[in-house]
Amino acid sequence: MPKTAKVGVLGASGYTGSECVRLLLRHPQVEIVLLTADRRAGQQMRDVFPQFSPFALPKLVAIDGVDWAALGLDLVFCGLPHATTQKVVKDLLGKAPLTKVVDLSADFRLADPALYARWYGHEHHAPDLQREAVYGLVEVHRERIRKSRLVANPGCYTTCAQLPLVPLIKQRAIDLDEIVIDAKSGMTGAGRAARENMLFSEVSEGFHAYGVGHHRHMAELDQEFSLAAGRDVTVTFTPHLAPMNRGILSTIYVRGVYDGSPQDMHEILSRSYRDEPFVHVLPFGKMPQTRHVRGSNMTFIGVAADRIKGRAIIGSALDNLVKGASGQAVQNMNLMLGFPETTGLEQVALFP
Amino acid sequence: MPKTAKVGVLGASGYTGSECVRLLLRHPQVEIVLLTADRRAGQQMRDVFPQFSPFALPKLVAIDGVDWAALGLDLVFCGLPHATTQKVVKDLLGKAPLTKVVDLSADFRLADPALYARWYGHEHHAPDLQREAVYGLVEVHRERIRKSRLVANPGCYTTCAQLPLVPLIKQRAIDLDEIVIDAKSGMTGAGRAARENMLFSEVSEGFHAYGVGHHRHMAELDQEFSLAAGRDVTVTFTPHLAPMNRGILSTIYVRGVYDGSPQDMHEILSRSYRDEPFVHVLPFGKMPQTRHVRGSNMTFIGVAADRIKGRAIIGSALDNLVKGASGQAVQNMNLMLGFPETTGLEQVALFP
Amino acid sequence: MPKTAKVGVLGASGYTGSECVRLLLRHPQVEIVLLTADRRAGQQMRDVFPQFSPFALPKLVAIDGVDWAALGLDLVFCGLPHATTQKVVKDLLGKAPLTKVVDLSADFRLADPALYARWYGHEHHAPDLQREAVYGLVEVHRERIRKSRLVANPGCYTTCAQLPLVPLIKQRAIDLDEIVIDAKSGMTGAGRAARENMLFSEVSEGFHAYGVGHHRHMAELDQEFSLAAGRDVTVTFTPHLAPMNRGILSTIYVRGVYDGSPQDMHEILSRSYRDEPFVHVLPFGKMPQTRHVRGSNMTFIGVAADRIKGRAIIGSALDNLVKGASGQAVQNMNLMLGFPETTGLEQVALFP
Amino acid sequence: MPKTAKVGVLGASGYTGSECVRLLLRHPQVEIVLLTADRRAGQQMRDVFPQFSPFALPKLVAIDGVDWAALGLDLVFCGLPHATTQKVVKDLLGKAPLTKVVDLSADFRLADPALYARWYGHEHHAPDLQREAVYGLVEVHRERIRKSRLVANPGCYTTCAQLPLVPLIKQRAIDLDEIVIDAKSGMTGAGRAARENMLFSEVSEGFHAYGVGHHRHMAELDQEFSLAAGRDVTVTFTPHLAPMNRGILSTIYVRGVYDGSPQDMHEILSRSYRDEPFVHVLPFGKMPQTRHVRGSNMTFIGVAADRIKGRAIIGSALDNLVKGASGQAVQNMNLMLGFPETTGLEQVALFP
Repeated sequence: MPKTAKVGVLGASGYTGSECVRLLLRHPQVEIVLLTADRRAGQQMRDVFPQFSPFALPKLVAIDGVDWAALGLDLVFCGLPHATTQKVVKDLLGKAPLTKVVDLSADFRLADPALYARWYGHEHHAPDLQREAVYGLVEVHRERIRKSRLVANPGCYTTCAQLPLVPLIKQRAIDLDEIVIDAKSGMTGAGRAARENMLFSEVSEGFHAYGVGHHRHMAELDQEFSLAAGRDVTVTFTPHLAPMNRGILSTIYVRGVYDGSPQDMHEILSRSYRDEPFVHVLPFGKMPQTRHVRGSNMTFIGVAADRIKGRAIIGSALDNLVKGASGQAVQNMNLMLGFPETTGLEQVALFP
Repeated sequence: MPKTAKVGVLGASGYTGSECVRLLLRHPQVEIVLLTADRRAGQQMRDVFPQFSPFALPKLVAIDGVDWAALGLDLVFCGLPHATTQKVVKDLLGKAPLTKVVDLSADFRLADPALYARWYGHEHHAPDLQREAVYGLVEVHRERIRKSRLVANPGCYTTCAQLPLVPLIKQRAIDLDEIVIDAKSGMTGAGRAARENMLFSEVSEGFHAYGVGHHRHMAELDQEFSLAAGRDVTVTFTPHLAPMNRGILSTIYVRGVYDGSPQDMHEILSRSYRDEPFVHVLPFGKMPQTRHVRGSNMTFIGVAADRIKGRAIIGSALDNLVKGASGQAVQNMNLMLGFPETTGLEQVALFP
Repeated sequence: MPKTAKVGVLGASGYTGSECVRLLLRHPQVEIVLLTADRRAGQQMRDVFPQFSPFALPKLVAIDGVDWAALGLDLVFCGLPHATTQKVVKDLLGKAPLTKVVDLSADFRLADPALYARWYGHEHHAPDLQREAVYGLVEVHRERIRKSRLVANPGCYTTCAQLPLVPLIKQRAIDLDEIVIDAKSGMTGAGRAARENMLFSEVSEGFHAYGVGHHRHMAELDQEFSLAAGRDVTVTFTPHLAPMNRGILSTIYVRGVYDGSPQDMHEILSRSYRDEPFVHVLPFGKMPQTRHVRGSNMTFIGVAADRIKGRAIIGSALDNLVKGASGQAVQNMNLMLGFPETTGLEQVALFP
Repeated sequence: MPKTAKVGVLGASGYTGSECVRLLLRHPQVEIVLLTADRRAGQQMRDVFPQFSPFALPKLVAIDGVDWAALGLDLVFCGLPHATTQKVVKDLLGKAPLTKVVDLSADFRLADPALYARWYGHEHHAPDLQREAVYGLVEVHRERIRKSRLVANPGCYTTCAQLPLVPLIKQRAIDLDEIVIDAKSGMTGAGRAARENMLFSEVSEGFHAYGVGHHRHMAELDQEFSLAAGRDVTVTFTPHLAPMNRGILSTIYVRGVYDGSPQDMHEILSRSYRDEPFVHVLPFGKMPQTRHVRGSNMTFIGVAADRIKGRAIIGSALDNLVKGASGQAVQNMNLMLGFPETTGLEQVALFP
């Protein structure tokens, strides 16, 4: 384990890339030595994200020209688009097998090749790596992550839904056939691509659902919930876009089984997360707000009783760019490189 | 029926009051002759809402000094707080029994005195009027509204939930025991009272649920859904606050019965609202956005299939201050005074 | 003069185009018979702007296939990009010389061919029409507009700056060499093109200036202020982008001459606009807010004294899509077609 | 100098108080041992600001019950309202004369008792302390701050205006009689008091100026600019409220003297701030955006040439709660307690 690790960020001109840079700049044990951004190659990071103007950072380069073997990076954060990712990671690990990778795309999240092909419409380009990859939800797979070389960082929506649900599913506390997840996300979750429906004037002062009935994050939920349950679990999941930059709030509707009450669910979650640094369970009946985790790696979870006996309403809030993406990626890195898990992730939420 | 009706707005310094004024100013058959606002009595409407600066409007007066009999109003919009409303309307109708009233508070919405007492913690102060009042959801109770003197204008959340659900409930198309309504509202729904948790800095850039498990609008939903079903119906309902001024989006999770499919539900709704001027059902699979009804009296409804067979996801969007409050109130007035139902409500939504 | 005019909107998929449609749909004397949108040709307006879903509107067509002579339109609103506009209008008026045109682009605003060439880097493609065009700021050029066939609708920033300044300049009330205009605009002023710097996440929760020292609207200000002064006037003008959809606020810093006080300026403006339906001067010392004119064709103007003797601070607020674009265009149409000037423009501002 | 300093925050239920807590929680050399909030006394900080839920913090207490001598605090941050502050600080320093104070109110910013009395309408309640207090703009008064016991933390607007202007005034680079400062602030600058005009629905989607001609921050600008100039300087200053939480952008209009060009001004500022950790001058012609300093202690400054020869437009951006308040307060604390100046202030801006 090196005293100072050399890391790179691929796709540094996107939001998850820049968020990695924000966190890594203040991480005491890493040095950023590579930043790639194909369309902005040759520019400085400050040209793409002026908030970095005061800081010295490597110039942006195109990914094709990187000599992975020569660079000898300890770890790479990969924030590239779907499909491209598979090729780049395969090439990278082929040439520099000792470099570790935290991938922020969806490319290595599904373990089952058939499931992948069904949701993405083609065979995986790196099936060996797909098999090798470890699903990087730290609170669930911590020990496997420590020993892995390639971690698939979970999606933002799915992290927000899994943290409250996995313990309840594992302990058979809820009816597995009647889970409804109504999720609301800030706009950064949609990335930085210039699309008409993401313009300020199209988004501000309004609210809507999208991807109703067929969002790809469902495959990831299916996999992890079924793993936790030991049987197939299929949930109802509806994502919405809220006129805000950061944050996901999941409102989750569940029914207790075996006379399990909402208070029991609260107790299970409180116990599960008592020692977790980045999951905080609020007192029974209190619901979380996205603004109170903004900019931090924290997830807040609340449980309340529905007026219908046996039913509970569970709220879960995180910052989609931090615990939902780059913060969790740094948390994974800390485990993979043997650093204390919370290093560089201690920021308190920025509210208001 | 007068050619030009003389109307008053009680509580003109609140948002539903000012929205009534906005609509009535351009209504060709009414004249605003009374505006009350106890704490702002003596001021001009432009001092309270500068958007009215260019218009001649009556000075704001205190409600206690109004001589109802002498004024001889044709109709009064009552935008007063809970409880106060009962006393004012009782007094008004006692002194001017020919004046009609559209009440925007919750005071006359519940028909059952016992239900009222249970949700509000005290006996109703005007039980005779409570019996007389007609629930003012035009699309459901149009004919009774035409003949009534006192109409209880529905709540914003409940209008948004009833319009898509009442036809489905009436036609027994959905499982009545498994209805989940996840509602998101803009901040004007919370009114104009100066409260810390409604400050811009507390609301902007964040999202949260509130009143989880015990919101008073539930009583109204219970009453109307049970009426439609001919049996008791209790739904799960969670309201949220979104960082926007206007708009409610309800995402509703239902399960079809008797092999009823989401397409069947869409067909029922399309047929039910074919001739309604203010309810528009989108093509199957398309979901509504609040921004597309902003400032208009329109409700947009969408139906999509969940990936779980038999389950549908229904979206419903309206402007909480228009169809959710003052627009619906004007629609009620038009019926009560014998004007064409759409008069003064033809504004196209303001987007972007 | 026809009882019902047949009108078209070119560029209906942009914000000024859709705003024309919003206003024209409720204008009692016009019928929309043509909507063009090259990239969306073949689609319905509701596919591009879902708020129009409940309304019957012509299908979007490509501009190249329009037979201007056969259509025999009374008037066309042209919301096309710079340069394209010149060619289209030339073609249109060549084939249908009796059709009138209100152009919302900047192409016909500058009367001087040399000035045009300097600011736009090329000769004008339709110099005869450039000469014929009348600058459409109604409050200044009303009589010429009535008789014109081609009106150049003013820019949003320039309308907001001219309305308070032109009367003061004409009456020599202020120092012409020391005018500073600090303007703040909502995002719809930047149009609907998908550009990274216009994404919600790039715009929300922040504020910045742009185009500092070289914004093209300056040429238009120079022309009109110099015309009003009878000598060259060059102002300092800085545009900013505010995280809101609609509205421009101009804060204008001026110094009185010949002992002219801020109160004198207020008096001049009040007198100038006493009978104007769409310009409202607030009481001395009160400053306007953009939210109070949102969605309306109104401009609010305020004048306050600076603490430095002789200097005044003038505020001016309008909705950039209404009085700053499509509302003013309809106002111009009303004059050109002989309708009452305020027809279709009576909407009260939508606040909150 | 203690290895770990014991500090308190008075007025912890306000935004500047909570922002101090956010920063101090992660400051490696201080321990928070006192939090006061009179109206919330007895509650936990997490009841008032849920973002602190995961952290152990002292319970909120009323200020009257604090035993200053017994506590022996090294330093207190005072975030109390105007006037109250004077009494509390006088009492505190009387009983615990070794405790140091950084006051975030305006109470000790004006050095001249007469000036204070004129702007605030009464004699100062602690004139000796007023004399003792040092004005805490670090970049200007660093050495005096190091030795002081009572520092008056500058206002947010004034910090944003002084940082670009003081070097230009000191070097006589600009005309002192023609400085116009047009400032735009986020809503947190107005504090957390529940006032109607600060509600989300009153602020969102709009823009306006306030306090035109008579804002109290002017007195502070007068004092510091006159000090820098060695003569009386009076500027034009207009504050505006933007619909965002954090950030101030000042757009400043100046005229060079002695043929000084905008490039010269840029050169002066670049040289002045070359070694300052929290002031960054952008390349000539680039203007700052508030979003790029959000959550950080950084100030970004830009200089551009106006098209009028000799005139420059200067932009300055900071986060009003950090460099404009609590970040600067911590910077002052670091100097007063002998810590490295940047300790605890290294956060990179949170964008988007």
